Amino acid sequence: MRRSKRDRQQLLLETIHDTPFITDEELADRFDVSIQTIRLDRLELSIPELRERIRSVAQASLEDEVRSLPPEEIIGDIIDLELDRSAISIFEVKREHVFRRNQIARGHHLFAQANSLAVAVIDDELALTAKADIRFTNQVMEGERVVAKARVSSVNPENGRTAVLVNSYVDNELVFSGEFEMYRSNQPEKG
Amino acid sequence: MRRSKRDRQQLLLETIHDTPFITDEELADRFDVSIQTIRLDRLELSIPELRERIRSVAQASLEDEVRSLPPEEIIGDIIDLELDRSAISIFEVKREHVFRRNQIARGHHLFAQANSLAVAVIDDELALTAKADIRFTNQVMEGERVVAKARVSSVNPENGRTAVLVNSYVDNELVFSGEFEMYRSNQPEKG
Repeated sequence: MRRSKRDRQQLLLETIHDTPFITDEELADRFDVSIQTIRLDRLELSIPELRERIRSVAQASLEDEVRSLPPEEIIGDIIDLELDRSAISIFEVKREHVFRRNQIARGHHLFAQANSLAVAVIDDELALTAKADIRFTNQVMEGERVVAKARVSSVNPENGRTAVLVNSYVDNELVFSGEFEMYRSNQPEKG
Repeated sequence: MRRSKRDRQQLLLETIHDTPFITDEELADRFDVSIQTIRLDRLELSIPELRERIRSVAQASLEDEVRSLPPEEIIGDIIDLELDRSAISIFEVKREHVFRRNQIARGHHLFAQANSLAVAVIDDELALTAKADIRFTNQVMEGERVVAKARVSSVNPENGRTAVLVNSYVDNELVFSGEFEMYRSNQPEKG
């Protein structure tokens, strides 16, 4: 039995409050209604769409500011950042990111998200990728959201090279992992 | 002393015939005239611009046709292809491919060129990247042309995984190298 509209809208408010990054598709599934119904509910309740919700959470919650590049050059939306420690971004796979033939996301977009996160986490105005060792562990399809998590694992005191591990997930399933070795400009002077 | 226009145009014809991928900038340098002069010379001589020259050489000379993806999904222009053996592509680094701050090409574009070449060289309708080990060995700047050369180094008879080495150059200087391990669909059945 379906809920009344009133009940549904109340639940919708609570659900989005608790899990702000839920998509309209997931909400429709959960409440057993059409996506169109969810959109109308959101309109009536003045809840912005997912993309806007991510933006506002991102702006409100970032502890640090990206130094190594302007935010608009980052592939994906950064939702968490502690410079030289860790960072998280979300990337929505759209039609332009997939092979037309099979709707599988193209590797270079997953790489771009992870690589720009590895750049963004560096606490320096210059950060460049020296090398990377990457794995594509599961296919990502159009419409899916990729959550990339970067962690700075070491900074070489000799040359300032910084190792960043990035793991990317769709619904908690690992789809990509990469070890990036980054150059930076503020490396310590050598003896 | 500058050459007469007639001499210059004769030399221009010969130069472009011998080195069809030379840019207007390089021609202007070589003949010590402005780029605008080179463009006017090309117009008078009905020599198409570099991009068109690459296209026509590419169309005329490809021994094989790409199977794994439609040509318009390849990053860069493929100018040579022997399926399951080798491939070459050219990618021009434009403003949208560089960090605005320092005009250095962003890693994911070099990766995209190399990765799509590794996909394109596979003689199969399905080719996906399993993993890659990559190095960025020199910075590439806006306006430079990257020549990527892919070579299939092995096909695993057990699982059909295909190893592709890609080296990318600017003016014969190595700027990127990658080892890609590719999935394909026509892998031999296991015993």
